Amino acid sequence: MSGVFVSFEGIDGSGKSTQARLLADALRTRGLTVCLTREPGGSPGAEEIRRLVLEGDCDRWSTETELLLFTAARRDHLEKTIRPALARGEVVISDRFADSSRIYQGLTRGDLRDTVDKLHALMIGVEPDLTVLIDIDPAIGLGRAVARAGLEMRFEDMGLGIQQKARDGFLALAKTHPARFRVISGAPTPEIVAGEVLSTVLARL
Amino acid sequence: MSGVFVSFEGIDGSGKSTQARLLADALRTRGLTVCLTREPGGSPGAEEIRRLVLEGDCDRWSTETELLLFTAARRDHLEKTIRPALARGEVVISDRFADSSRIYQGLTRGDLRDTVDKLHALMIGVEPDLTVLIDIDPAIGLGRAVARAGLEMRFEDMGLGIQQKARDGFLALAKTHPARFRVISGAPTPEIVAGEVLSTVLARL
Repeated sequence: MSGVFVSFEGIDGSGKSTQARLLADALRTRGLTVCLTREPGGSPGAEEIRRLVLEGDCDRWSTETELLLFTAARRDHLEKTIRPALARGEVVISDRFADSSRIYQGLTRGDLRDTVDKLHALMIGVEPDLTVLIDIDPAIGLGRAVARAGLEMRFEDMGLGIQQKARDGFLALAKTHPARFRVISGAPTPEIVAGEVLSTVLARL
Repeated sequence: MSGVFVSFEGIDGSGKSTQARLLADALRTRGLTVCLTREPGGSPGAEEIRRLVLEGDCDRWSTETELLLFTAARRDHLEKTIRPALARGEVVISDRFADSSRIYQGLTRGDLRDTVDKLHALMIGVEPDLTVLIDIDPAIGLGRAVARAGLEMRFEDMGLGIQQKARDGFLALAKTHPARFRVISGAPTPEIVAGEVLSTVLARL
């Protein structure tokens, strides 16, 4: 039996990480075996690449080099974590996957979007069975992200204009791939959002 | 004025690193400004990626992930070291460049050669003006490499069959790109080889 691959996407502060965790808990309560993972990272090698990308100055790596490093991390994550878990029949829940590269590297440099897609086709070639997009007003998302602050301001430190472009980009992706995407509003309380996520995912399992 | 980009290629123990250094010395003596560099590495970021790839078990990374990491390092090396030096009109001498990926990743996994070429076209897209292939009998090359031993047995620890395949691969590449490659025997003494390298490169400058 082969498993199911679910990714969560959304702008910073959308609550997608919380929702990924709540979904994992709810599915485990129902007796399913869940592999909860994240990007960049999700395997020991990919976590090391993550540290290399996120440490140091923002402009330490060009967007192209950053894209190659994220793709190397994704390939390792896929080989060492995602594929083995799917082969064991587990539900894999990943907090971000390739759509984040499409949006964030494509956002920073508009002309890179085509390169992101070609690189994905060449070196990754896998899409989730289901992508849950947690959609939120960037003003709310940014407020949450700034309040959380802490270690990972690398992407959060981008301002409202970029967050709005990222939101628009994710919504456009969802329209382009309606069979794979489900868009869920992140505005209600986490419990209400979690209920909607759970029923969406159960309908798909 | 824009500079000239020369790469050295060859199997382990061919003497290409020595020859790259001797060429740099000879050109500097003639008053030219030389940027002597190497792959994987050649810029602070690329050297960090190099450490990540070469540390740990041989099978820590799949060939595909390794290829992505080397390509990320090459992109950084190109942006931070090679292109700025060429823009200043310098002679850039790199100990290995993309041909090494074509041979070594293509050797480990024959079906990857096409992927290596596509990834190079997508993310690097630059070839040296001149590639000096130092050609040597693998038995001699392996003997030298093993005698040198030390820290970098990652690629050297591959045996004669692989070295023979690598030599054949490099010679085939040289035949495919005759305008870019010059094949020089690494069998004579380093001084004799260096003389031939120097006259070859001066003819091209």
